[in-house]
Amino acid sequence: MGRNRDIRTDLALEAREILREEAMKSKEGWQGDPKGVVVENAGDEQIKISRVRVVSSEGEQAIGKPMGNYITIEVPGLREEDQDLFEDTCRVLADELSSLINLGEKSTVFIVGLGNWNVTPDALGPKVVSSVMVTRHLVQYVPEQIDQSVRPVCAVAPGVLGITGIETGEVVKGIVEKVRPDLIIAIDALASRKMNRVSTTIQIADTGISPGSGVGNRRMELSRETMGVPVIAIGVPTVVDAATMANDTIDLVLDSMIKQAPQGSDFYKMLADIDPEEKYQLIREVLEPYIGNLIVTPKEIDDIIDRISKVIANGLNIALHRGITPRDVNRYMH
Amino acid sequence: MGRNRDIRTDLALEAREILREEAMKSKEGWQGDPKGVVVENAGDEQIKISRVRVVSSEGEQAIGKPMGNYITIEVPGLREEDQDLFEDTCRVLADELSSLINLGEKSTVFIVGLGNWNVTPDALGPKVVSSVMVTRHLVQYVPEQIDQSVRPVCAVAPGVLGITGIETGEVVKGIVEKVRPDLIIAIDALASRKMNRVSTTIQIADTGISPGSGVGNRRMELSRETMGVPVIAIGVPTVVDAATMANDTIDLVLDSMIKQAPQGSDFYKMLADIDPEEKYQLIREVLEPYIGNLIVTPKEIDDIIDRISKVIANGLNIALHRGITPRDVNRYMH
Amino acid sequence: MGRNRDIRTDLALEAREILREEAMKSKEGWQGDPKGVVVENAGDEQIKISRVRVVSSEGEQAIGKPMGNYITIEVPGLREEDQDLFEDTCRVLADELSSLINLGEKSTVFIVGLGNWNVTPDALGPKVVSSVMVTRHLVQYVPEQIDQSVRPVCAVAPGVLGITGIETGEVVKGIVEKVRPDLIIAIDALASRKMNRVSTTIQIADTGISPGSGVGNRRMELSRETMGVPVIAIGVPTVVDAATMANDTIDLVLDSMIKQAPQGSDFYKMLADIDPEEKYQLIREVLEPYIGNLIVTPKEIDDIIDRISKVIANGLNIALHRGITPRDVNRYMH
Amino acid sequence: MGRNRDIRTDLALEAREILREEAMKSKEGWQGDPKGVVVENAGDEQIKISRVRVVSSEGEQAIGKPMGNYITIEVPGLREEDQDLFEDTCRVLADELSSLINLGEKSTVFIVGLGNWNVTPDALGPKVVSSVMVTRHLVQYVPEQIDQSVRPVCAVAPGVLGITGIETGEVVKGIVEKVRPDLIIAIDALASRKMNRVSTTIQIADTGISPGSGVGNRRMELSRETMGVPVIAIGVPTVVDAATMANDTIDLVLDSMIKQAPQGSDFYKMLADIDPEEKYQLIREVLEPYIGNLIVTPKEIDDIIDRISKVIANGLNIALHRGITPRDVNRYMH
Repeated sequence: MGRNRDIRTDLALEAREILREEAMKSKEGWQGDPKGVVVENAGDEQIKISRVRVVSSEGEQAIGKPMGNYITIEVPGLREEDQDLFEDTCRVLADELSSLINLGEKSTVFIVGLGNWNVTPDALGPKVVSSVMVTRHLVQYVPEQIDQSVRPVCAVAPGVLGITGIETGEVVKGIVEKVRPDLIIAIDALASRKMNRVSTTIQIADTGISPGSGVGNRRMELSRETMGVPVIAIGVPTVVDAATMANDTIDLVLDSMIKQAPQGSDFYKMLADIDPEEKYQLIREVLEPYIGNLIVTPKEIDDIIDRISKVIANGLNIALHRGITPRDVNRYMH
Repeated sequence: MGRNRDIRTDLALEAREILREEAMKSKEGWQGDPKGVVVENAGDEQIKISRVRVVSSEGEQAIGKPMGNYITIEVPGLREEDQDLFEDTCRVLADELSSLINLGEKSTVFIVGLGNWNVTPDALGPKVVSSVMVTRHLVQYVPEQIDQSVRPVCAVAPGVLGITGIETGEVVKGIVEKVRPDLIIAIDALASRKMNRVSTTIQIADTGISPGSGVGNRRMELSRETMGVPVIAIGVPTVVDAATMANDTIDLVLDSMIKQAPQGSDFYKMLADIDPEEKYQLIREVLEPYIGNLIVTPKEIDDIIDRISKVIANGLNIALHRGITPRDVNRYMH
Repeated sequence: MGRNRDIRTDLALEAREILREEAMKSKEGWQGDPKGVVVENAGDEQIKISRVRVVSSEGEQAIGKPMGNYITIEVPGLREEDQDLFEDTCRVLADELSSLINLGEKSTVFIVGLGNWNVTPDALGPKVVSSVMVTRHLVQYVPEQIDQSVRPVCAVAPGVLGITGIETGEVVKGIVEKVRPDLIIAIDALASRKMNRVSTTIQIADTGISPGSGVGNRRMELSRETMGVPVIAIGVPTVVDAATMANDTIDLVLDSMIKQAPQGSDFYKMLADIDPEEKYQLIREVLEPYIGNLIVTPKEIDDIIDRISKVIANGLNIALHRGITPRDVNRYMH
Repeated sequence: MGRNRDIRTDLALEAREILREEAMKSKEGWQGDPKGVVVENAGDEQIKISRVRVVSSEGEQAIGKPMGNYITIEVPGLREEDQDLFEDTCRVLADELSSLINLGEKSTVFIVGLGNWNVTPDALGPKVVSSVMVTRHLVQYVPEQIDQSVRPVCAVAPGVLGITGIETGEVVKGIVEKVRPDLIIAIDALASRKMNRVSTTIQIADTGISPGSGVGNRRMELSRETMGVPVIAIGVPTVVDAATMANDTIDLVLDSMIKQAPQGSDFYKMLADIDPEEKYQLIREVLEPYIGNLIVTPKEIDDIIDRISKVIANGLNIALHRGITPRDVNRYMH
């Protein structure tokens, strides 16, 4: 069973989890993934890989995400200072990214770092752009100085331009029409539903960026349809939507109360069984007048963004220029 | 009745409100402010002024704040672009601030902007420092160029020095011992309990900065006791503690359910009557494992911080250099 | 007599001065401006306005600048903190700019701030963009909130996107094709020949930006020919080319020596009479191996750029939105 | 022969060169280094090391620098992207620095990065502070997590505070009195006389920072005398004083003219033989009215500062925490 819904998560993996939770509360229970949604797991405890493929419009409807591939890399230990885990995660990211792209030797890649540098949780895109290896101008002007395995890569962080009166989509499309890249990779900060996903999860999707997604509620659509070129979106949840957080907390509190006070257990159960979406919408309504859009982030969000932007930049460098060593990165870093 | 408690608000006005809410739920009801806490109201609907004075240790215990003066300026309309309201708020801030300070003509004032520039809701202090009129060096070196009514003012944003391995308190104390100011004004971002307080409320307290306060949980105490000089703290709530937000949301949801479903009303009432502090602690417990310290801010927090830092900087300029016009500010602005 | 030459100045007024100096050294002396170059003076001692029009290809050849209008505003006192002079300069800039443009009520204006934020003398463009009033998005989305006399203005600082592997010209052209402005105003930092011009001179030219011009030796041409839309260039000299400075210094030193040592005066005269261009090229040759491209700027260049970028931003705001007061600027400022 | 003079160079090696040049022009010629100045050379063509020791007040007078050690590391190839040379230079810097300092296992080191972030050639100090490994807080609070060979290092960039009305010297002294370091290392941008020194030369001096030195003409003295603690100054020339540059250019041009025009050779020789200091002062006089303090820097100064600040930060990390690997640096980097 499925219907299109505003599940308020940018992560396909979460969308699938929500379906599962709801199904488990129903009489039928969980019957497996809906038709049109194929899930494959890989990796290990440290780095868990889930590959979700939406293969039909039925699947699209069920999970609320366009047809395509959604690879989620979960690294719970990424918060600690573990240099080996860091390097392994970069490599896994590079491998999974490579599985989705199909580049010729001199294909041009255009990296777009979405986000507003001035709102810390939304600064992921600009940070990745400032760390990634940019080579297009070198390949153009001094090709003899460039290693064979280096591709032309260029990047832009349109949000860094500030409020300029120009839509980000207009800027990106305008540049795409001039540069004519073979592939666009868009980096964005996402909102998730589970608080423990923030900064330990990376999603790679070949469906690009949908309107309304991301921390910044991007207005534009950045996809093959709108850009004329394949678009890979790499996203990391950096915030949890406040209504989501309240909702989840209420559930946790009710669960706790049910255990502690059996006399009200029938009633608690009734509360807990209210349709999750109805409950969520009720919470959004009551929060609305108090202070519009709230975002919830960990206090150490600036360090988190620093670290994860390096993971993504390194992963990109490895994936786009196979055979390049860290030493070469220093040579090419702008 | 009062006891020392961790009320988790930096605002004295909120601490008093919490007492009142709890009292109203008890059998005795609200008996008025506790002994040792004197409250005076002024202003109007647009700009509401509350002056809370804690005058005895009984009052300290009741409200959980040290003895002293706490002036709260509430301007709900400050979120909109109302230039008149903006200017009126600057003037009110200047007047209330002046009522707490006692400066000679050439008293030196040292402004300390606490906070981490890299975490947007914590950037208030540094932003105020970058906008306030600094004059000490001019008064020292070119006194003949300076208007009579200008006082020597200097400023520092120690957090902007970056993570340097030196405690902010050490940096501030070291500078205070060299500069020997007559007054310290510390600017800090606060956490509040009510979401609608964020960015529409300014608190001026003559008790300085307490350890553990503020968005950054400041480690040091910045007070007359530690600095040897009077310390005024100007704070604006820019975040709501996540547990607080969940707690308040649960209450709102329960209220809403009570209205909608009378059959469970006795039970809802029972839920709603659970001791607020117990409920709050329960929520903190359930949230804790999921993701340590969360902060909740409005999405447009960077614009909010910009605007309110200008209010504070202007208010300071007016209060510290009576008689100076905006044109002169341009002359002195660093 | 005239010939095309690399006079190494971005200022038309200087190009004309150089012609005059050279002519005064020749047998014929100064015969007046060359054919095809019309000069008109206005203003006063405080704010001097020179309007140079190049009206034929003869004039182009003589002065080394494309046909068009070049208005130079010289304000020697701009370095001091004179608020009246500041405001008068903004108004003069607005008036002269208005004389060159022909906008309908809702014409869209696109401001391009050229320059590299990380090289202080080249940061003028980005600074103006960050201070100018941007309204296009407001006119598009909330026209009822906008005053009648406000035009749609948008802005971008392409250099701020960082070293991205994309030519600035590609970025600008791409955006122009999407936004379809009626007018482009490009802001750039220039190199001048006379050291006292730096930061006290503003040039407005309706010929746009030529390749090789500006502190950054811009590669692209930003003109009606390349953009399909009229381009006004507003430039301020912020550096003096090092070879120029050495050259001028040599002349000054020789003049001084001539006065002091009459015995060598014939010989000094001979030195002083060497063809200026030959002397200049000789100096460039001797400097070349020592350290490539040098720039010469005043030490207080960051304050200078701050001040002059505000003059330009204010002048633009007044010219583009006639009738708007400073208060309204606060409402629209991003 | 020597006398105290304003030689206008921050580099001891240049001061000694100037003495040599002047002596070679005199009848006696160059007789070797003056009494009280001992020079020792080491290294090779790629990395040349000169160790100048001023051992008596005679030497002080001769060379115009206080008694102490001045080690100059010259790496002409540092401008190119040579990763091996980069790493070798870091190591040489670490070794030479170690020869001047005498630290116990847990000695506290305080790094002061002088300079104004907003004037690109003066941003060296702040950049080094942002890249160096800071550990004091870790050693204080979580000593069990720290490797044995890590010392407590803290750092501050006082100029980053902006124009705050407080003297940099006051800020530094205040912090020193609280932190009580065993050693201070001050990083500063210098002015040199030879254009090819810019960014390819590093000077390490155990005499600290003298008033009037550096690009910023530092007002304070940062030395054992003023701070009570040994002060090592690490400086890199990033500008050439404009009068110097003009002076050197005039010499080069005259040399060139002498070769080309033998008929004037007696006279040119006469010009070339004018006392260098008199010629230099003459040039300063003629330049003065035109535009106060000029600085001359290479156009690519921002990239240069980036690269050389990394050399210094790495050299510091190696010298202060012997045995630490680059991986550990990542762990400790703030």
